[in-house]
Amino acid sequence: MVVCMPDNITDLEVKALVDGVNLSDGHPRMSLSSTQSEIVAGFPEVFAQTRKLPVDVVEKSARNAFLSSIGQHTALSDGVTFRSCYSSSTAIDMIGKAIRLADRKVAMVEPTFDNLHDLLAGHGLSIHSVAESELAGGTLEDVIPAHGVLFTVSPNNPTGAVIDADRLHQIAAACADRDTVLVIDSCFRAQDLRAQYDMYAVLGQYDLDWATIEDTGKLWPLQELKAGFLNWNVGNPLPLARMYSDHMLSASPFILRIVELFAEDGRHGGYDRLRGGIQSNRTLARDHINLAPAYPESRISVDTFRLPEGVEASALYTELGEIGVHVLPGELFYWAQPKLGTDLIRISLARDPEAVVTGCQRVDQHLEAWRRVVIR
Amino acid sequence: MVVCMPDNITDLEVKALVDGVNLSDGHPRMSLSSTQSEIVAGFPEVFAQTRKLPVDVVEKSARNAFLSSIGQHTALSDGVTFRSCYSSSTAIDMIGKAIRLADRKVAMVEPTFDNLHDLLAGHGLSIHSVAESELAGGTLEDVIPAHGVLFTVSPNNPTGAVIDADRLHQIAAACADRDTVLVIDSCFRAQDLRAQYDMYAVLGQYDLDWATIEDTGKLWPLQELKAGFLNWNVGNPLPLARMYSDHMLSASPFILRIVELFAEDGRHGGYDRLRGGIQSNRTLARDHINLAPAYPESRISVDTFRLPEGVEASALYTELGEIGVHVLPGELFYWAQPKLGTDLIRISLARDPEAVVTGCQRVDQHLEAWRRVVIR
Repeated sequence: MVVCMPDNITDLEVKALVDGVNLSDGHPRMSLSSTQSEIVAGFPEVFAQTRKLPVDVVEKSARNAFLSSIGQHTALSDGVTFRSCYSSSTAIDMIGKAIRLADRKVAMVEPTFDNLHDLLAGHGLSIHSVAESELAGGTLEDVIPAHGVLFTVSPNNPTGAVIDADRLHQIAAACADRDTVLVIDSCFRAQDLRAQYDMYAVLGQYDLDWATIEDTGKLWPLQELKAGFLNWNVGNPLPLARMYSDHMLSASPFILRIVELFAEDGRHGGYDRLRGGIQSNRTLARDHINLAPAYPESRISVDTFRLPEGVEASALYTELGEIGVHVLPGELFYWAQPKLGTDLIRISLARDPEAVVTGCQRVDQHLEAWRRVVIR
Repeated sequence: MVVCMPDNITDLEVKALVDGVNLSDGHPRMSLSSTQSEIVAGFPEVFAQTRKLPVDVVEKSARNAFLSSIGQHTALSDGVTFRSCYSSSTAIDMIGKAIRLADRKVAMVEPTFDNLHDLLAGHGLSIHSVAESELAGGTLEDVIPAHGVLFTVSPNNPTGAVIDADRLHQIAAACADRDTVLVIDSCFRAQDLRAQYDMYAVLGQYDLDWATIEDTGKLWPLQELKAGFLNWNVGNPLPLARMYSDHMLSASPFILRIVELFAEDGRHGGYDRLRGGIQSNRTLARDHINLAPAYPESRISVDTFRLPEGVEASALYTELGEIGVHVLPGELFYWAQPKLGTDLIRISLARDPEAVVTGCQRVDQHLEAWRRVVIR
């Protein structure tokens, strides 16, 4: 068949190059692996197959494949309710809408991606900041709002910090004690093996209300063909089922099957390749930017660097944008206290290595020029 | 390539048959036409192409193709802002979230799909009912809330009623006079040529704040590969751009290009086939159910029948479900006064003719049995 195309495809590709290097958003934009390309080549067959199957069967099969491929076996048990969403943001927005109806206060980790805060704040929620370090260790007494909601992210973005099983036990127990709903956004889980202990087995040991978000949107360069899975315990006081049914019937069965096939590919080497690619891009980035990494132990598909004194992230962000390099300034991640992020810039590693190197070189050249001016 | 499949595909297909005939939801479940099948066969090529293009270019191209294919040429002008959404519900939910922030009262048409009401009500909005007949004719003085929002649907679901150009002029003028934001959900527009006058040209003639939803989700059997387009006037007081950017970057470029290709196919005969199929299914339904159609002039892909006295829609809905026919009871559409819908059932026509006939025959047999009991 002839697929109609705009006349100006070459112009546009040139424009994309002129526009520069996008290392800002965390959406995966690297090339497909050969086995992933084979799945894409089979799209028409997948479409024909999923047409014939009941949606709930396709949905459950995809979720089971994805969650078990990242170690979350207990998520498949009867005590867990789930829904497939267009995206993790759709799931988080439903949680925010439900929290407003339940009239609960929220404590949210800081730093984290400002979008998470903004999605909830748009519902008019009262949101209190909890430092990631407070969640990572020490007493939880003053951290968890009684009869409220604790919203955490693990692995966290941009820090890559993972709540380990021991700490999750403590947090879950503290939330259960205080009638606090524990929400965990685990969208980056597949990128970090340390996050792949069976989290749902821990949560299930407490008389706890909880909700989690699992996501494929950060993993595979599928042009936003993705699904977010919203999971919660039976009996959860947030009206999540209702928020969901008001909004959608299910994610696309076609997309769900693609998710399943990519998860199976992940299990058979795809996740290792994904993590290897991220690690190798991280090394390239750190080799090409003469700055200290802010989070040396991070394994997720972004990396963050600490700027020299006198350079403000938001100003640098603007200057870099003018020369065609798109990064994110650290202020965005400190959603309550932006000044704490003013010496940080974040770059995305979910790119082909060439893009990472080119972008980092331009950042470094720009900073070198700045250093020469300052030193002179 | 080998696409892995569950073992029990035949079992599942049997189960789907045993489960009965789904004439309830309005999601399109008919077969693809041959030219539509060709587009699906080209999915891998489409994926390869859209990968290379800037997302905003793909997005704009898809929207231009879709909106101009259904007569909305002025929607492409500079005074109109737009965003591509996962679905029309996603767009409507953003509108609801924005209305809450803007603290405006809402007047919403009744009857209409209860989902629209529920999506907004979940934000805690104050929603007042406006009878469709009041919007269709007569004075608008008491109908439009000053400094509020008027939420209408045209073509409306389930009635199929279309606000014509003359009436839209009156409604737009009245909203402009009262500083009321006019929201129009036009998700069924492509199914009814009477709704394809250039609505944006009318809206643009008034000093009016407005937002519209255009949607592909009701049109093509693409397993929820779809996009909703949220459009609004520059200067609109609802913070729609912010609600959007909190939630998403864009719809999938892959899906957007599929939308464009289906719109082009629509322009070259696909829409005529779509409307012809709906019309022919409507005739089949009316031939096979011995009930009066509630909305004789409707052109959209659902049809509604008036039940004999003594039959309650919600009870019939339950009984039909037990014998494997899934319809929707009219109470759902009268979101403020459910009793007004108690003598109505709605069936979907976006199915293959066999499903419509089978479902309608079962409904009719069930009602015949009821009549015999009553008459005896």
